[in-house]
Amino acid sequence: MTVNPPVERGVAIWFTGLSGAGKSTLAEALAPRLRARGKRVEVLDGDAVRTHLSKGLGFSREDRDINVRRIGYVAQLLARNGVFVITAAISPYREARRWCRESIRDFVEVFVDTPLAVCAARDVKGLYKRAEAGEIAQFTGVSDPYEAPEDPELRLATEGLSVAEAVDLVEQRLVALGYLP
Amino acid sequence: MTVNPPVERGVAIWFTGLSGAGKSTLAEALAPRLRARGKRVEVLDGDAVRTHLSKGLGFSREDRDINVRRIGYVAQLLARNGVFVITAAISPYREARRWCRESIRDFVEVFVDTPLAVCAARDVKGLYKRAEAGEIAQFTGVSDPYEAPEDPELRLATEGLSVAEAVDLVEQRLVALGYLP
Repeated sequence: MTVNPPVERGVAIWFTGLSGAGKSTLAEALAPRLRARGKRVEVLDGDAVRTHLSKGLGFSREDRDINVRRIGYVAQLLARNGVFVITAAISPYREARRWCRESIRDFVEVFVDTPLAVCAARDVKGLYKRAEAGEIAQFTGVSDPYEAPEDPELRLATEGLSVAEAVDLVEQRLVALGYLP
Repeated sequence: MTVNPPVERGVAIWFTGLSGAGKSTLAEALAPRLRARGKRVEVLDGDAVRTHLSKGLGFSREDRDINVRRIGYVAQLLARNGVFVITAAISPYREARRWCRESIRDFVEVFVDTPLAVCAARDVKGLYKRAEAGEIAQFTGVSDPYEAPEDPELRLATEGLSVAEAVDLVEQRLVALGYLP
């Protein structure tokens, strides 16, 4: 097999956390910052991915893991071609995240650590209310597990942080890891 | 929304044709040629994609179309980041191929036009024999339709052509279209 010509180093920035923790908001705020630093960026948002890659999958552990691995497969293809890929799916299970870490190599796991009570109080999409009423089965944090990362590259305790401050911390971590100058 | 910094132009080179027509062989022979010209290349082979993106999908028209669109979605992400993506899935239906063409824009459709009788006689994977024995339902060209491209960027009539000669023709077409110098 031949090898592609050298390319600037890409990376997968893998946000994980509960529904409503702020993953998509942070991803969308981070993307223009990275572009301003000359990086090519793609955001693989959980909802977009469910439409394009995983329609028909449900929320069983097996289906969630398949969904996360598909995102990982696509993120790997992009990252190894020099793209900064930001993913924003709940990705609740450690094992599937570890699979992604091992496949992608350039992998920065960012735990968006917003307490369940805060996510449920925000309830941006009205999902917690429905989950607590029993209208949604297998809702992460309510009726389905969330396995918090044990050793993420960055843990963002979002309470009391603005979006800009949180994104600052991600940028600083990317600098410390050598992905940004 | 911000826009990624300018990047060298990528393209999806979309092989379509019957099972056994030679799509994967041509894709694997084309990839190192493009790398030798300094391009970054990814091959999305039909079988690899079925493993990573489309496990669980069958061979109904709907499932085949979902599979092809998923490949198209990934090809688009790569092509717009400067990658030369080569796809090698049967992609039997015109409408799904048109969807890919419209999504990707830089889209070069290569019809690998190997007659059914030739594919069936080669029968590299033993699938035609099984399809003709009725052991495989919905086999393209035997018990399922193949809608040949009406206006592909390139039609490769492979009979009498070596692999190297066929790849020469693809390269020449890419030059004529401005994707290669």
